[in-house]
Amino acid sequence: MAEGRKKVYFERVALIGLGLIGSSLARAIKRHGLAGEIVGHARSQETRELALGLGFIDRAADSAAAAVKGADLVVIAVPVGVTGAIAQEISPALDPGAIVTDVGSVKGAVVDAVAPHIPDGVHFVPAHPVAGTEESGPEAGFAELFEGRWCILTPPPGTDEAAVARVEALWRAVGSKVDSMDPRHHDMVLAITSHLPHLIAYTIVGTATDLETHLQREVIKFAAGGFRDFTRIAASDPVMWRDVFLANKDAVLEMLGRFDEDLTALQRAIRYGDGAALEEIFKRTRAIRRSIVEAGQA
Amino acid sequence: MAEGRKKVYFERVALIGLGLIGSSLARAIKRHGLAGEIVGHARSQETRELALGLGFIDRAADSAAAAVKGADLVVIAVPVGVTGAIAQEISPALDPGAIVTDVGSVKGAVVDAVAPHIPDGVHFVPAHPVAGTEESGPEAGFAELFEGRWCILTPPPGTDEAAVARVEALWRAVGSKVDSMDPRHHDMVLAITSHLPHLIAYTIVGTATDLETHLQREVIKFAAGGFRDFTRIAASDPVMWRDVFLANKDAVLEMLGRFDEDLTALQRAIRYGDGAALEEIFKRTRAIRRSIVEAGQA
Repeated sequence: MAEGRKKVYFERVALIGLGLIGSSLARAIKRHGLAGEIVGHARSQETRELALGLGFIDRAADSAAAAVKGADLVVIAVPVGVTGAIAQEISPALDPGAIVTDVGSVKGAVVDAVAPHIPDGVHFVPAHPVAGTEESGPEAGFAELFEGRWCILTPPPGTDEAAVARVEALWRAVGSKVDSMDPRHHDMVLAITSHLPHLIAYTIVGTATDLETHLQREVIKFAAGGFRDFTRIAASDPVMWRDVFLANKDAVLEMLGRFDEDLTALQRAIRYGDGAALEEIFKRTRAIRRSIVEAGQA
Repeated sequence: MAEGRKKVYFERVALIGLGLIGSSLARAIKRHGLAGEIVGHARSQETRELALGLGFIDRAADSAAAAVKGADLVVIAVPVGVTGAIAQEISPALDPGAIVTDVGSVKGAVVDAVAPHIPDGVHFVPAHPVAGTEESGPEAGFAELFEGRWCILTPPPGTDEAAVARVEALWRAVGSKVDSMDPRHHDMVLAITSHLPHLIAYTIVGTATDLETHLQREVIKFAAGGFRDFTRIAASDPVMWRDVFLANKDAVLEMLGRFDEDLTALQRAIRYGDGAALEEIFKRTRAIRRSIVEAGQA
């Protein structure tokens, strides 16, 4: 085995949660030969059997604790609201020297919930692959999901450097770019780039759901005018997103407050026919789009 | 010439406004051989010369009135706020029997502004091709823009049926599906499918523009989390959209009011940790997405 490859190789990966992200990571690990074995656990037996049938796990475990026994890497890929409970459950079963990581979209609350359950000699490296689709479940995953996308690590100060390096190497091996930052800073950045856009998309599609019947039929027919993009975002997994908003409450409310002030100002400009104010705001936003295009993120 | 083609053929098309929509329609008319000649007008000489160089008009006119002389079809493709002024200017120069149409995203205000200037014997058929990109200007146009997209006609009661049929045939010939409805109903439907999504996208990108510098850099870097879709929408033409919001004020404020109530309810659920309410709302929105996918609009 080549030296470069050996560095990222794990003997046994325990995967807790077999949804879009977990199953995509398992598929990518298999494709790139990054693990000897993947043991998977999901709450429902149906999901475990589906995962075995799809072949992205080698073995299914009846409990999270059973899954992590003998694993040198544990990936928690469940809605962020239950990450702490999973950490508590697996805590006594973790092998000394094991690395525990997660894939949650919120990092501050996850670090707070998981860290107290990590035994001495086990390393916790929180991670957030900024990737996904509006689909969910084990069948929705695919090995290429993380290619060219960012994965953000938020290791608390003092985290074992070798463990961080191995998690970083894993994400690079599945095609991601890797950055690291403070968990609270991560949560503020993601509040505006991801959480607020999802909240707004859910809201406007919800507003359309309540429209008078004759309007609603035509909203569906003429969705291509801009609304369609929002419905795609708003089709994302409800439980995952419920947990994101609950876990990142402070940052989301802060950004929502700023958004609301700005929307009120636009509303007022429309009401009083202030075309100059509208045009000025609409022109400013082009600069950010240009920066995103230049950063190769468009 | 085949009978089917003859029906949609115009001897001379006058095109007032040479931006994304106007230049795309001109290109499509040329590609499908739907006109003998296209005479174009734009306010700036630079744009007129650019259009001649790109070849989607055969001749440039110094004024809108000069452009429409001898035209059997006049297409007004300018921001909706100036449509009325154009109609007033061209009124004395319109040929008897000519058809005047437009491409505005708002129909009630356009009908009110244009109809009084249409002489007896000239036919006004308001139209809205529900198509576009975030690009603007004569170079951004392309002949395929309208293929598979809806074009909504909103002819006032009593409009000459043959004229409506010719405008419908034109849009079908460039690949569009055609529907017709009352102008006020159109404005309500588009307020939610297009105008409100654009307003919200402009707002959230504006909010990001005002972020602290260290956050803003990372917003651009991690834009792929959902924010990126909003920046694309918010890169649309500022003047066109300023006019849309001013011209469709009532419907936009009505829909914005509903949206704002719904967003406040979500904000409250987040603040008080009401996970059940969040999950319920997030689940409801999936149904509309499914309808859009089934309607072939996704």
